[in-house]
Amino acid sequence: MKRHIPLAAVLALAIALPAAAQFRKPEDAVKYRQSVMFVMSNNLYTRIGGMVNGRIPYDAHAAATSADTVVFLSRLPWDAFIPGTENVGRTDAKPGIWTEPAKFKDLQEKMQSEVLKLAQVTKTGDLEALKVAYRATTAACKNCHDSYTSQ
Amino acid sequence: MKRHIPLAAVLALAIALPAAAQFRKPEDAVKYRQSVMFVMSNNLYTRIGGMVNGRIPYDAHAAATSADTVVFLSRLPWDAFIPGTENVGRTDAKPGIWTEPAKFKDLQEKMQSEVLKLAQVTKTGDLEALKVAYRATTAACKNCHDSYTSQ
Repeated sequence: MKRHIPLAAVLALAIALPAAAQFRKPEDAVKYRQSVMFVMSNNLYTRIGGMVNGRIPYDAHAAATSADTVVFLSRLPWDAFIPGTENVGRTDAKPGIWTEPAKFKDLQEKMQSEVLKLAQVTKTGDLEALKVAYRATTAACKNCHDSYTSQ
Repeated sequence: MKRHIPLAAVLALAIALPAAAQFRKPEDAVKYRQSVMFVMSNNLYTRIGGMVNGRIPYDAHAAATSADTVVFLSRLPWDAFIPGTENVGRTDAKPGIWTEPAKFKDLQEKMQSEVLKLAQVTKTGDLEALKVAYRATTAACKNCHDSYTSQ
């Protein structure tokens, strides 16, 4: 079943050739965006979140390094949401990603904006300000996941 | 079996607490380094390699973007090679990573050096020079994988 790709998906891939050429197969596009999200999630929730929640001692340098990683990675997943990958492999992506591209892009940009603010705050060494920025960032993540993932 | 962690690994994790605290569980450290490697591999082999091998039309801007991604990601996997993760989950990591840390670090640094040269070459728009830098970079990847992964 994994190898069966619906005709509509094949046609969509053919139309979107330049994007699709970035992946050897549709499953790789799913794995790419999930890999980026996992590394972002680890840096945001486990490392920075661990400091915010007191599980890890606060380390301003480590928080800034993780925030810079989240900023960089926050640009990467989007070109992997190519047409024809909404039902491929073990994705949680909902069809709205492809039917409401403007809303999806707006939520991406809101997240990226919060992530940039978070990174700026980590440079100040102010843990209380970091807590505020962390909550705004994770809320922006959740807004998009609530709309566009089935998790 | 997946939940069973040998005592030696638990002790190693306890000694390496600051690093281990970056991951909720040892499996996450394995998934972290594999996720980073997958995104690096896609950008290096599929995207840049696709241009080098003629599968994708050469696009200097896209090559530079991918190379910058590889540069950034080339710094990330190493703190996930924490003690106690050599036999966790579906890792291909060989024990030499932990018994020969100096050699492992030397091979990392050689790869990072080639990746930086690759990124510089992508800025020139010279496809022939990119082919040379690509081969040097992939050789540096292979040197480390030949020694330290069972794939």
